[in-house]
Amino acid sequence: AQKDPKGWTSPQKVLAPPMVYITGEEMTHYAMQLILAQWIKPHVDTTKWEFFDLSCKARDESEDKVLHDAVAAGARIGAIFKEPTITPTTQQAHAMGLKKGWGSPNGAMRKGWNGVTISRDTIHIEGVELGFKRPVLFDRHAVGGEYGAGWAHTGTGRLMTTFFPDDHSLHPVIIDARRLDNASNVAVVYHNPLDNVREMAHHFFGRCLEMKVVPFVVTKKTVFKWQEPFWKTHKDVFDEFYKDQFKAEGLLDTTDGELAHLISDAATMQIIRWTKGGFGMSAHNYDGDMLTDEIAQAHRSPGFITSNLMGVAADGRAIKEFEASHGTVSDLWYAHLVGKPTSLNPLGLAEALMGAMSHSGVLAGHEAKLRVDRYVDCLRRALHATFRAGEGTQDMVGEGQKGKTTEEFIDTVAKRLSQYIARDLDKEQELLEYAGTTFKPKAVFSASMAEAVDRDALLEVFKEFADSSGETEQPTTLTFDQFEQLMVRLGAAPVKNPSRISSAREV
Amino acid sequence: AQKDPKGWTSPQKVLAPPMVYITGEEMTHYAMQLILAQWIKPHVDTTKWEFFDLSCKARDESEDKVLHDAVAAGARIGAIFKEPTITPTTQQAHAMGLKKGWGSPNGAMRKGWNGVTISRDTIHIEGVELGFKRPVLFDRHAVGGEYGAGWAHTGTGRLMTTFFPDDHSLHPVIIDARRLDNASNVAVVYHNPLDNVREMAHHFFGRCLEMKVVPFVVTKKTVFKWQEPFWKTHKDVFDEFYKDQFKAEGLLDTTDGELAHLISDAATMQIIRWTKGGFGMSAHNYDGDMLTDEIAQAHRSPGFITSNLMGVAADGRAIKEFEASHGTVSDLWYAHLVGKPTSLNPLGLAEALMGAMSHSGVLAGHEAKLRVDRYVDCLRRALHATFRAGEGTQDMVGEGQKGKTTEEFIDTVAKRLSQYIARDLDKEQELLEYAGTTFKPKAVFSASMAEAVDRDALLEVFKEFADSSGETEQPTTLTFDQFEQLMVRLGAAPVKNPSRISSAREV
Repeated sequence: AQKDPKGWTSPQKVLAPPMVYITGEEMTHYAMQLILAQWIKPHVDTTKWEFFDLSCKARDESEDKVLHDAVAAGARIGAIFKEPTITPTTQQAHAMGLKKGWGSPNGAMRKGWNGVTISRDTIHIEGVELGFKRPVLFDRHAVGGEYGAGWAHTGTGRLMTTFFPDDHSLHPVIIDARRLDNASNVAVVYHNPLDNVREMAHHFFGRCLEMKVVPFVVTKKTVFKWQEPFWKTHKDVFDEFYKDQFKAEGLLDTTDGELAHLISDAATMQIIRWTKGGFGMSAHNYDGDMLTDEIAQAHRSPGFITSNLMGVAADGRAIKEFEASHGTVSDLWYAHLVGKPTSLNPLGLAEALMGAMSHSGVLAGHEAKLRVDRYVDCLRRALHATFRAGEGTQDMVGEGQKGKTTEEFIDTVAKRLSQYIARDLDKEQELLEYAGTTFKPKAVFSASMAEAVDRDALLEVFKEFADSSGETEQPTTLTFDQFEQLMVRLGAAPVKNPSRISSAREV
Repeated sequence: AQKDPKGWTSPQKVLAPPMVYITGEEMTHYAMQLILAQWIKPHVDTTKWEFFDLSCKARDESEDKVLHDAVAAGARIGAIFKEPTITPTTQQAHAMGLKKGWGSPNGAMRKGWNGVTISRDTIHIEGVELGFKRPVLFDRHAVGGEYGAGWAHTGTGRLMTTFFPDDHSLHPVIIDARRLDNASNVAVVYHNPLDNVREMAHHFFGRCLEMKVVPFVVTKKTVFKWQEPFWKTHKDVFDEFYKDQFKAEGLLDTTDGELAHLISDAATMQIIRWTKGGFGMSAHNYDGDMLTDEIAQAHRSPGFITSNLMGVAADGRAIKEFEASHGTVSDLWYAHLVGKPTSLNPLGLAEALMGAMSHSGVLAGHEAKLRVDRYVDCLRRALHATFRAGEGTQDMVGEGQKGKTTEEFIDTVAKRLSQYIARDLDKEQELLEYAGTTFKPKAVFSASMAEAVDRDALLEVFKEFADSSGETEQPTTLTFDQFEQLMVRLGAAPVKNPSRISSAREV
């Protein structure tokens, strides 16, 4: 490459705008070290990134100063990537020799960045079918609800809750007065701060419009009357700023031309029914916790959903923190430590990193954004093409096939990424054709799921259906192996041992 | 029939023990009137049943005395069947000409009957595959949580919650003190009474053991620390009274030999994964609301899940109220009123009625129980056999097939029931053979769901899988029609218009 019209070929790398990079622990930290070395460093100048170590050890040694520094830097810079971290129990903290059990960093981050919403969206791989066909977007209110509740275990007695307005001319108000007549009770009090729900609504509807999905506001307001303002604020913002645009896009055709409300328990049903995707939900904090996990499972697993915190800086800039939806994957880490080969799928980590980099571009202005997005686009295409080529990790190849190890996969993507970047310089068009022909989509499914399939039970179902006719005969033959792949991919295959699958969950 | 060894052939009917029968409104009331006339009256002497009319009109005219009478009778008798009722909004109450919008009767019933748990279990039809293969049991704590919350919408200020113990020698305790710093907040306070959790645990584990399913206690106690006692009480009861029995049955093989706890958001995932069923969950009130609706949908629809309130009388007797999990099915009612044919599936209603009758037998002693159970057994077999014979309502026959109308279905079951009862008198064995040969199971699925299937999309998936091999060939052929039935039955078929399906929900 003699000329460098786009300013980012080696040796001249893409200059990445400022970003906060928070490092964590165990398997995901190990994988991210490899990714930084092989995907990022050869192509990206990261000198403007600020790194913070939120490992238990670093937090302990600094008496949690690292956390406060990271939060301050995040508030200043506005684009944050975070690796999964560990929040040790008191016992674990003791075993690790820590001064104390440093709590989850989430609270400090949500507070320091004025967290408004946690966006959790389905991740899709072009040409590979996962759960939902089209995107499912979710915004979960990042504040309020039982997460910040005060509580006590009580005997019999009376409970009184009083509100003292800041306006001293106003009388105190008794909000609730009740008898606790059981010998054993728990009393719980919490509040939902509502000032940022307008920002949440704008964020949510803007995203829904961009992705062309149908928006739903989810509450239990029919019974929990205090949830009415959450809906009302969404509705007001929608009617004033978004309704006409959604209508023009045909996104209100199935909701009588209006923003639709969905009761939270009905939402648990629709998530199972609406397998096509193409919808968005905005919900309170705990409902969001429940429903996004259901969506993750309906789509495939927590590895295929994002987890991004959107906050607002004092000057109105959006602060966005991106992380994978899963934890540090301890079981693979222990396997790695004793020298066993591992196969970690880094899709969620990579999506978070790419999201943070893209947002750093937004904050740095048009030119910077174009450069960063071009790199991110290459990385995403290289990643997707590797999965499509059947060169994925163990969870993404067909039954009987061997998936790549953690290291092999990262290496394979790195090679493809280099090709993409090199070709992109001179012949963008050729790259597109190349990607289209060589990496032909093939059916892939989770090998760990396949192991859990009850083949006998499945064969019974198959036989029942296949034998019940006999009169009509069609030329199309579906072999049982193909059928099994289909069932597994649809998440419809019966499993042998439910608890073994459940224990695979890391989050 | 000359002789009557079992004491319940016509003209001598089964003498049904005392039971409270609560009538409701609209389509479900109409269907129950037919059921009473054709299934019950010809075979059962209901003179000991006490009927209460909880229609809006009757509640309005009696100033809600009927509700209080029904609750009192329920507490005295202990076995209650309830048809779906209407809780009108203020506008509806006005339109109906009511004095006021009489609230939901549920609160008064839960209180009057010392409601402990609402049991919601999957309904299964022998020989017809619905969602879960084996039973899924659920117990939802009938008291506490946000349903009884006090709340207020506030500006900025301070909120203080104080507990005043009944023991006057103790000081008041400040349970929570916080600033509400947003311009707009809602403050929420509630309590969970815990005294009856032991009874709930006994009820739950007893049921799990009887149905041979694996028990799970579901909470969010990892974050909502006040939920620890709910788990701890279950665990104590389990270890003391049930552990050995569950172990002996092999029901702890997948849970390391111990009672398993499941975090509520993880439960939303497992409900999708554990398609085989064979598990039970016990949960707090709101979690139960969310999770049971998810289970209903994963199984098929709210028509295939029970809703039974278990309470405790002052003398320790179990008070049990049985109702269908769905509402009054207004859309079919309005169709019926203008003379259109309807096809209401009364399975949920019938299961509730049979449940209440069986419990009335339990309360009336051994002899009465045997007689009632024999009748209930005939009714259940007649009902199931009618579905299996392909003579079900519109939601239970194959695509293109015409389901029975509401009236035809009830009539068909009535005829079969009479045959069963008549034959049972003299040749029980013949009946079994008769049922086994004539009513051969066939694949059935929801016609309304079938209408919503995106056949083009399905065909694409089918083709992709069927074509991708080509090397191996197996003799078994699955036609596309069979395949579609399979997909629909598994709930895995993509749908064309999600909102149209959603509007079919009545509850």
